[in-house]
Amino acid sequence: MTGRSQVINVTKMRGSLRETLEDSVAVEEPLEIRLGYEAGGERHTSSVSITMRTPGNDEDLASGFLFTESIIRSPDDVAIVKPCDGNNTVRVELEDGVVVDLDRLQRHFYMSSSCGVCGKASLDALRMSGVEPLPAIPAQFTREVLVSIPNRLRTLQETFEETGGLHAAAAFNSDGELLVVREDVGRHNAVDKVIGALLKAGRLPARDLGLMVSGRTSFELLQKAVVAGMPLLSAVSAPSSLAVELAREFNVTLIGFLRGTTFNVYAGEERIAE
Amino acid sequence: MTGRSQVINVTKMRGSLRETLEDSVAVEEPLEIRLGYEAGGERHTSSVSITMRTPGNDEDLASGFLFTESIIRSPDDVAIVKPCDGNNTVRVELEDGVVVDLDRLQRHFYMSSSCGVCGKASLDALRMSGVEPLPAIPAQFTREVLVSIPNRLRTLQETFEETGGLHAAAAFNSDGELLVVREDVGRHNAVDKVIGALLKAGRLPARDLGLMVSGRTSFELLQKAVVAGMPLLSAVSAPSSLAVELAREFNVTLIGFLRGTTFNVYAGEERIAE
Repeated sequence: MTGRSQVINVTKMRGSLRETLEDSVAVEEPLEIRLGYEAGGERHTSSVSITMRTPGNDEDLASGFLFTESIIRSPDDVAIVKPCDGNNTVRVELEDGVVVDLDRLQRHFYMSSSCGVCGKASLDALRMSGVEPLPAIPAQFTREVLVSIPNRLRTLQETFEETGGLHAAAAFNSDGELLVVREDVGRHNAVDKVIGALLKAGRLPARDLGLMVSGRTSFELLQKAVVAGMPLLSAVSAPSSLAVELAREFNVTLIGFLRGTTFNVYAGEERIAE
Repeated sequence: MTGRSQVINVTKMRGSLRETLEDSVAVEEPLEIRLGYEAGGERHTSSVSITMRTPGNDEDLASGFLFTESIIRSPDDVAIVKPCDGNNTVRVELEDGVVVDLDRLQRHFYMSSSCGVCGKASLDALRMSGVEPLPAIPAQFTREVLVSIPNRLRTLQETFEETGGLHAAAAFNSDGELLVVREDVGRHNAVDKVIGALLKAGRLPARDLGLMVSGRTSFELLQKAVVAGMPLLSAVSAPSSLAVELAREFNVTLIGFLRGTTFNVYAGEERIAE
């Protein structure tokens, strides 16, 4: 198995000093996701995504991706998930009878991200795909729990400690327990790995769990939280305008700049308990 | 024109305090790039990319994207670049006679990022597309110049100051002058905007310029630097394994963790002067 970090020689410049030593970098390798499905009485296979990712939890990444793209809806849709042809391909075989919307796949390839040509169209596309706004649930996460997550996440980020080069995502409950923690060079991959693990565990929709991500929040990450039914997304850095808009439209609590004992709430303040 | 930042209401939690006020977030909106070209004596139009970006310099983003994907090779290939149908579409009309490789476009859609199924295949793909390793040029950038770039870049990041939510990219010369500075929610878009501006100015290949980016460096960013002929890529954070591999293979100086007076050199140390 390919590792998540790799040792290389690096020259460190410190003021006027120059020193060559060994250091670790995060591994980035492509992963191809191949989807097998039945249509018209025959089995078909399509290559549905190639993403640059950090090896590890590739099966979760594949199934999380297929779930957040609404290609699969439940763990029961999946017959087999396994690596094939070495370490950089995962094959997902769906059960007979699961209807695959090839247009949706096509749209994904075509558009890079699942979006229309304006923010409005993007929101419409999500709405049309049958994704519903989250139910209102008051006061589920306390401030104390929320501000405790980043430090705990950091202590669990093994590869980040080594390389300084990975994003992290975690699912946590209202007691502040981190149920799933994943790392990846790509934020969207780290989130797909978390959601894939929740799917496998039969924990979706995860209406009682928050999602924490390092870095910033974009339309794409909000979309994944919404599809997974997660009512709260918190991040160390800033949200984009479209992330805020999507959070408000789909009733997700959106938190940014979660640092020390402070944070900003951009949407869904009613889920934060005093 | 759509702005780069947008004012929204946000609730700020500070310890036990709670205060609602206005704050700015970085705008994220999709941009569609439509390519017009001649083939078999007729004009055709294809939608070649939809990317989530921060509005501004959209023409540079479009032409930079087409250049770094090796669809256009010179500013002379382009007849017209202009926004159409509102602010979220840019139309690029190529001159008659410019041969467009639709398979390359297809490959891009299909693969999300221009990569094969393993790192090796990715490097092969670049090599096969006619991109050459950069010529060896000794001692072009001093340490003093390199460590001065991040602070100067930060002072020019107008929207980052407001929103804390944007990546930045800049082209700089060996005197440390920042010739082009661009911001975007996507790092790859910020880099495409810089490269598009250099293309327009007739400055490509930019064999005398370094490229500075906020955040981390991945395969994709290295690829863009190589195609633009830029001999040095420096970043505030860590590189990935594939970024290091590509830099060494294509003879690009790769710098990471550029902070204060220190930095790491992962490849091409000979371009750094004492």
